[in-house]
Amino acid sequence: MSTLELQRDNRQAADPGSWDRADPRAARSVIRSGAFTGYTAGIAPGCVQANVCILPRGFAEDFLLYCQRNPKPCPLLARSDVGDPRLPTLADDLDIRSDIPRYHVFRDGEFMEEVTDITPLWRDDLVTFALGCSFSFEEALLQAGLRLKFLARNNVAAVYVSSIDTIAAGPFKGPLVVTMRAFKPADAIRAIQITSRFPNVHGAPVHIGDPGRIGVDLSRRYQDVGDPEVADDELPVFWACGLTPQLAVRNAKPPLCITHAPSSMLITDLRNAALAVL
Amino acid sequence: MSTLELQRDNRQAADPGSWDRADPRAARSVIRSGAFTGYTAGIAPGCVQANVCILPRGFAEDFLLYCQRNPKPCPLLARSDVGDPRLPTLADDLDIRSDIPRYHVFRDGEFMEEVTDITPLWRDDLVTFALGCSFSFEEALLQAGLRLKFLARNNVAAVYVSSIDTIAAGPFKGPLVVTMRAFKPADAIRAIQITSRFPNVHGAPVHIGDPGRIGVDLSRRYQDVGDPEVADDELPVFWACGLTPQLAVRNAKPPLCITHAPSSMLITDLRNAALAVL
Repeated sequence: MSTLELQRDNRQAADPGSWDRADPRAARSVIRSGAFTGYTAGIAPGCVQANVCILPRGFAEDFLLYCQRNPKPCPLLARSDVGDPRLPTLADDLDIRSDIPRYHVFRDGEFMEEVTDITPLWRDDLVTFALGCSFSFEEALLQAGLRLKFLARNNVAAVYVSSIDTIAAGPFKGPLVVTMRAFKPADAIRAIQITSRFPNVHGAPVHIGDPGRIGVDLSRRYQDVGDPEVADDELPVFWACGLTPQLAVRNAKPPLCITHAPSSMLITDLRNAALAVL
Repeated sequence: MSTLELQRDNRQAADPGSWDRADPRAARSVIRSGAFTGYTAGIAPGCVQANVCILPRGFAEDFLLYCQRNPKPCPLLARSDVGDPRLPTLADDLDIRSDIPRYHVFRDGEFMEEVTDITPLWRDDLVTFALGCSFSFEEALLQAGLRLKFLARNNVAAVYVSSIDTIAAGPFKGPLVVTMRAFKPADAIRAIQITSRFPNVHGAPVHIGDPGRIGVDLSRRYQDVGDPEVADDELPVFWACGLTPQLAVRNAKPPLCITHAPSSMLITDLRNAALAVL
């Protein structure tokens, strides 16, 4: 899931408590041990967190093409070699089988189960895709002094399925999923400038203003996720969302697909600031 | 005047006809001779055209400060030495007394006359300010494939006096004047990106969306200038306008002030593309 997640109520998630939350390697180590299964927001600040999608080799080429054709919702940070659980360009110790707090397993496009380790499911034909997430640009927005209202409410950006179609690649197709953040006009302009610097984490918005123009009714969120409020003096601004490929996967119905669980992202050693193109 | 002007009906303006309109030096030479007194849009494409404001030395420091404090409406490209009619950083042959097609002369803040040469008015205490103009960023918008609807209608961007105050400097003060261009949302986002690259020619917009939020009624243009139409599927986008300092000068009431006449700009050797910061 690409929307910024807060440190939600993690009482039901394992967390050993004493480890250096600023250190992405320490985070992966604790996660790898199974001792942390919570949400990753707030961990290793400044480091890129990634959406993950793992597919059988037979679907990998089309999914790669889907990412290439739809870079705003699917900004590809790394693709593993076939059967290789490592992603060395994201971190040299990274093992995708164990380094995400919680995984979602889909079979034939349908959600099956949530697990905390996929080593038992690993196969020599699996390919991992790591995609940028809006955490990174939200950090940049906050550093620029912009206010993300939903954070104060312990919520995330609202998520909607738009009427914009993505460009299909093989069996991967579907609508563009978007996140909405509300800003006063001058801040909306600033947010466009800032997020334009981060094409690898969804980049500039895809729409601003009247939600109906992209088939969105603000009151009808996707899976009721996020804060839909837009004040009278604000404009809704819409960014492409990393949930888009999950809907495309659902349409493609691969026999196996493994993703991160929403808000439990892959923590990498990449720096958010290093993603800025300008 | 900072709005992009078209090649309007110049039948009443002198033009010798045969000279290289692509060459800024040739343009200044023809203008200097008095043989061209028309609008400068379309002349020396790719070259920066500037708003000009000439003030007595006693007002120059405060006006410089006004520009520094209000860089969006007053993006200063060059300031001459006191009494010096040259602006060598804009063009080495430039003589501000003769190189603008038509000048407007103000005394005590009131418009007095339009002239084609100010050599008889020149004094050793005059200081010239050359300010960026939206011509430059409109060229960049067109090159990026964006449509400026008003061009097809042989019109310019609509001009409004907003309710936003500029930051005063000495006697210079007044409202922010803005230009409005209407775009579909995705194009508005692109226009924000493109104009952000040009801080020396007004830069990013100051407002997007509801005109009332900045005190603008789209039907009430400043001096009826420009095309106010915003289609149902468009957003109005507002940029700071080079007319802002003219209103500030009117408030400051200097004994003498000379500006270019609207749409008859100073043609420089600077390249628009060279102003891009990114």
